[in-house]
Amino acid sequence: MSTCPIEPTPFNRVALEQLLGKRFFYAPAFSLYGGVAGLYDYGPPGCALQANVLDLWRKHFVLEEDMLEVDCSIMTPAEVLKTSGHVDRFSDWMCKDLKTGEIFRADHLVENVLEARIDGDKIARNAPVEAKGEKDEKKKKKAAKVQAVRLEDETLQTYKEILAQIDNYSGPELGELMRKHLIKSPETGNDISEPVVFNLMFASSIGPTGQYPGFLRPETAQGQFLNFKRLLEYNNDRMPFASAQIGRSFRNEISPREGLLRVREFTMAEIEHYVDPQKKNHARFQEVADYKLNILPASVQLQGKTDLMEITVGEAVAKKIIDNETLGYFLVRIHQFLTKIGINPDRVRFRQHMANEMAHYACDCWDAEIHTSYGWKECVGCADRSAYDLTVHSNKTGEKLVVRERLPEPLVEEKLILEVNKKVFGPRFKKNAKAVEDYLASLDQCTLETLKEAHDSKGSFNVDVAGETYDVTNDLITKFEKASITTHIREYTPNVIEPSFGIGRILYALMEHVYWIRPEGEQRGVLSFPPLVAPTKCLLVPLSNNEAFIPVLNRVSALLRRSGVSNKVDDSGASIGRRYARNDELGTPFGITVDFQSVQDNTITLRERDSTKQIREKIEVIVDLLKEMCEGKTTWAEISSKYPAFVSQEVNE
Amino acid sequence: MSTCPIEPTPFNRVALEQLLGKRFFYAPAFSLYGGVAGLYDYGPPGCALQANVLDLWRKHFVLEEDMLEVDCSIMTPAEVLKTSGHVDRFSDWMCKDLKTGEIFRADHLVENVLEARIDGDKIARNAPVEAKGEKDEKKKKKAAKVQAVRLEDETLQTYKEILAQIDNYSGPELGELMRKHLIKSPETGNDISEPVVFNLMFASSIGPTGQYPGFLRPETAQGQFLNFKRLLEYNNDRMPFASAQIGRSFRNEISPREGLLRVREFTMAEIEHYVDPQKKNHARFQEVADYKLNILPASVQLQGKTDLMEITVGEAVAKKIIDNETLGYFLVRIHQFLTKIGINPDRVRFRQHMANEMAHYACDCWDAEIHTSYGWKECVGCADRSAYDLTVHSNKTGEKLVVRERLPEPLVEEKLILEVNKKVFGPRFKKNAKAVEDYLASLDQCTLETLKEAHDSKGSFNVDVAGETYDVTNDLITKFEKASITTHIREYTPNVIEPSFGIGRILYALMEHVYWIRPEGEQRGVLSFPPLVAPTKCLLVPLSNNEAFIPVLNRVSALLRRSGVSNKVDDSGASIGRRYARNDELGTPFGITVDFQSVQDNTITLRERDSTKQIREKIEVIVDLLKEMCEGKTTWAEISSKYPAFVSQEVNE
Repeated sequence: MSTCPIEPTPFNRVALEQLLGKRFFYAPAFSLYGGVAGLYDYGPPGCALQANVLDLWRKHFVLEEDMLEVDCSIMTPAEVLKTSGHVDRFSDWMCKDLKTGEIFRADHLVENVLEARIDGDKIARNAPVEAKGEKDEKKKKKAAKVQAVRLEDETLQTYKEILAQIDNYSGPELGELMRKHLIKSPETGNDISEPVVFNLMFASSIGPTGQYPGFLRPETAQGQFLNFKRLLEYNNDRMPFASAQIGRSFRNEISPREGLLRVREFTMAEIEHYVDPQKKNHARFQEVADYKLNILPASVQLQGKTDLMEITVGEAVAKKIIDNETLGYFLVRIHQFLTKIGINPDRVRFRQHMANEMAHYACDCWDAEIHTSYGWKECVGCADRSAYDLTVHSNKTGEKLVVRERLPEPLVEEKLILEVNKKVFGPRFKKNAKAVEDYLASLDQCTLETLKEAHDSKGSFNVDVAGETYDVTNDLITKFEKASITTHIREYTPNVIEPSFGIGRILYALMEHVYWIRPEGEQRGVLSFPPLVAPTKCLLVPLSNNEAFIPVLNRVSALLRRSGVSNKVDDSGASIGRRYARNDELGTPFGITVDFQSVQDNTITLRERDSTKQIREKIEVIVDLLKEMCEGKTTWAEISSKYPAFVSQEVNE
Repeated sequence: MSTCPIEPTPFNRVALEQLLGKRFFYAPAFSLYGGVAGLYDYGPPGCALQANVLDLWRKHFVLEEDMLEVDCSIMTPAEVLKTSGHVDRFSDWMCKDLKTGEIFRADHLVENVLEARIDGDKIARNAPVEAKGEKDEKKKKKAAKVQAVRLEDETLQTYKEILAQIDNYSGPELGELMRKHLIKSPETGNDISEPVVFNLMFASSIGPTGQYPGFLRPETAQGQFLNFKRLLEYNNDRMPFASAQIGRSFRNEISPREGLLRVREFTMAEIEHYVDPQKKNHARFQEVADYKLNILPASVQLQGKTDLMEITVGEAVAKKIIDNETLGYFLVRIHQFLTKIGINPDRVRFRQHMANEMAHYACDCWDAEIHTSYGWKECVGCADRSAYDLTVHSNKTGEKLVVRERLPEPLVEEKLILEVNKKVFGPRFKKNAKAVEDYLASLDQCTLETLKEAHDSKGSFNVDVAGETYDVTNDLITKFEKASITTHIREYTPNVIEPSFGIGRILYALMEHVYWIRPEGEQRGVLSFPPLVAPTKCLLVPLSNNEAFIPVLNRVSALLRRSGVSNKVDDSGASIGRRYARNDELGTPFGITVDFQSVQDNTITLRERDSTKQIREKIEVIVDLLKEMCEGKTTWAEISSKYPAFVSQEVNE
């Protein structure tokens, strides 16, 4: 049902974009005012598609896994994002054309120029250049010019290796590459500045006096972390558990490009799954262990290669290619979700981040990348944020963000115990006594062992507290020896596995994957959305404007609405063929025609979009069949094998 | 079902707020960092409640009325909001304590101080002071101090009249009131500055160079207006039609207060209904004409009164109290929506805005106000924005935002026609010739009549174009006379009726309306949400941790999920009574108990929250009943009259 029934015609991005604009799936925002790069509005079909995909996301993740959904503030005090590391590190490298002042994202510039050189080399060697769908003149202008210049074999190899790990370079490294490979401003040929860091958050200030700086959140995650204690309590203190959030985030991209793929404002759906760092297994892992994924580990990319590995998630975890069961479980669930909404599974891969490319908070990360006419694009990230976020917020605010678990049986440990003589301690260190005492109380066993050596051998040890050194002589210590300590409670900071979905990117990739051109007659575009996510499920078409059809139409429409099948009546004067063509473009999977026979015998025809085949049955039967197909309980293939095909004499396309 | 079965205990806001915090309906955002006034996070039950209310909103408005839903950008270029008038006029008046620098919203300050004086007067007269639920110490501190001082009768009357129209004063008028009535800083008694204007939009800047100023949208409306042309086309050029949008908006309130009622970031649901200004009737008005509303027209308020008028919407429109049918139709639909989600209809009124209070874009406005412990609060605005927005954007951008309608029969009019002699015109006015010509072409009939007089009598007329005066002598004119003009197309700018919902305010009012305290045993709070909007529909409780119950529980849970009835299993060790108490607080309308009998005979008990009554039937029967109640197709009252009450021996509360 979701794959088109005929060989797809070669993909034509310009034609797809025209269709999406004409039918108002989405459009550049503020275009009356000349538009703003990276901001888009969704029209009725795009908005409905998004709502259906989010609804499925909620069922697939939140309900199925009993997650705790929250809805948090977008405006965020600067202090929170300072602590989380975003103020210092959530940035890209930008550089400037030194004469025109035009601004580039440094990695994109290197990528564009080297790709253009490789294409130029291919032309010089008479090899075919891979079509990128870049037929749009405006876009072509932005890309680096392709000139037919043959490269040295060695140079070509170097360029390919750079491109394979383009996401792995720091700003200074990108500057080094630009100098070494003589990369200039693509249009002007002018020199380019050294890359400088640019923070991607939109800044504002809160309150009437303007003294309270804030940022628009760049991800929905921080709101979830800050509510960790409340959520754990809401979950009756049980572990593991997950919170989830669907909402808008903002990134002030240096150079938004590629339509919905790189924008400044976007809807995300994020899950924060909290686990015991000692138990990253997953209760339902066995259900998915045999599921096969196409993966691209970091180690392969670091060799300058991009070959995919097909492997079951069970084997990948066993071989430690994927670190743990929980991460593996979510990779499969992500893949299942993408497939369910209509993404072509052959065009999904999981790519592991390389060390430099990883976000500052992540210790491991796998991206679900979807193949589009722009290449492989990250659409879902699945990061192991370890205990990073809870730890930094806890350290900053002094609030414990931990799980306390009663141990199944008490834990008895031999531990070094250090007790100070308060009577002497106070007079000796005066106002600093408390700080030194607190410091000593906070030391781990390993440090204590070291101090104990000095204590035993030299009669004193030194500690550095807040920039000063204190000599702690043995007369200050009443006890410094091993003792048996019994613990009933284990306290730990949970680790976080975070699947994070860029909804706009997924929607765009989906629209590319389901698009094809019907070759019969005048070529016309079709969007073969699966019924589950199609913006409208059914079109109702009266054969003509004859008033006799109206009561039947109203009845069918009401019955469908009651069954939760969204539908639209098209009683415009256009021919039925033209109405169906409009509908192909809107991706409506089913069409019902009401004709004179309907008025007489209560039957209607049901037409399926991709095959254009029809059946004819009683109204009630058709409504039930539609409901089942739209809920994913049966398919057109099943139905068309059971009911006889109907060839209408009245309905000509 | 939605009203509590017993006399409500006196409303206790502190207890409600404790419950809402404890069960994480919502909580102050960033509280780990000390919090930020006016920013809140919704926890799992609040988030689910909001999702259910929005889902109903979508069904009640978007689907039922076939509206075009869009999802637009929040970040908005400054130019757009300059044109819409928000940069210049979307503001409140603020004033400062001249010594401490504390900032107040000027109207709130006057209101607080006068209300405190009236309360003080009541104490001095030994009259009861209306309880406002202000038991929270922190809040009390912020309010003006109440001192038992008796006022002159005349002063008391003046204060009441001021308060009745507090929303109608401009900044200078508020300053005048403060001087006249000696209003000082409530806590310090210091003098207060004159009110100054403060723009309520959050500012930011877009792009890497920081030269492109933007604001976070203060309403979702502008995105809809800017897409008017696309939407009209999507609607096959048919009128009237409506667009709708659900999304976040931002207002940098001077002093956020009253919990969810005045916040800096909030979810809105807005409808822009486009109508022909000559046909503001509504096709479905007759369906609602007999619906009664409680209204408070502007004329009554201007007399310093707040008496409500109960009137059918048909009569209110006939008497021109409500301007037109479309406005009246939406007031009823708003009232129906509020009642459906559980708002007490006796605590809803429609208040018309007074002239000064109206937003800059509105020509008439009715607020649906809901009564809460904070008084009557605007929760839905229903404004007639006339052609304001489309006109200003069209004028600014030069893009026609109009409807073109083929007239049923051609319109023939006698019109004055002015034609210039281009051969003479050019040489005479040189580089300004085009501007003068364009100006003449743009003139309306009335102006042309005046010029024609001078043309006929003096042999020339003067026009002012771009600051210069031009003498247009008769030799420049080839034709200036009446002619018969036939028009086939009528072109007009539609008017906009805008129902605009503050979702957070509605949710808070709802939580107040459905809250009561169960008097039996230890007092415990109940939130009697109607099943349609309750965060979770059904609690599943096994009698104990016995493993025999697990398969039955799983089966019931799966059946309910398949029927779309959200449910939670509570298999914690707590007593059944305690589990039901927790559930009362979460507002879950139904509870199912699985006991040993269930394992034997496939029956379960179903308990209703408000009555605590139970019935016992086969699993399949109970699941069907629940589905029907949660979809609003039947009620507990109907069911409990059909099925025998079950009194459990095993389940003690």
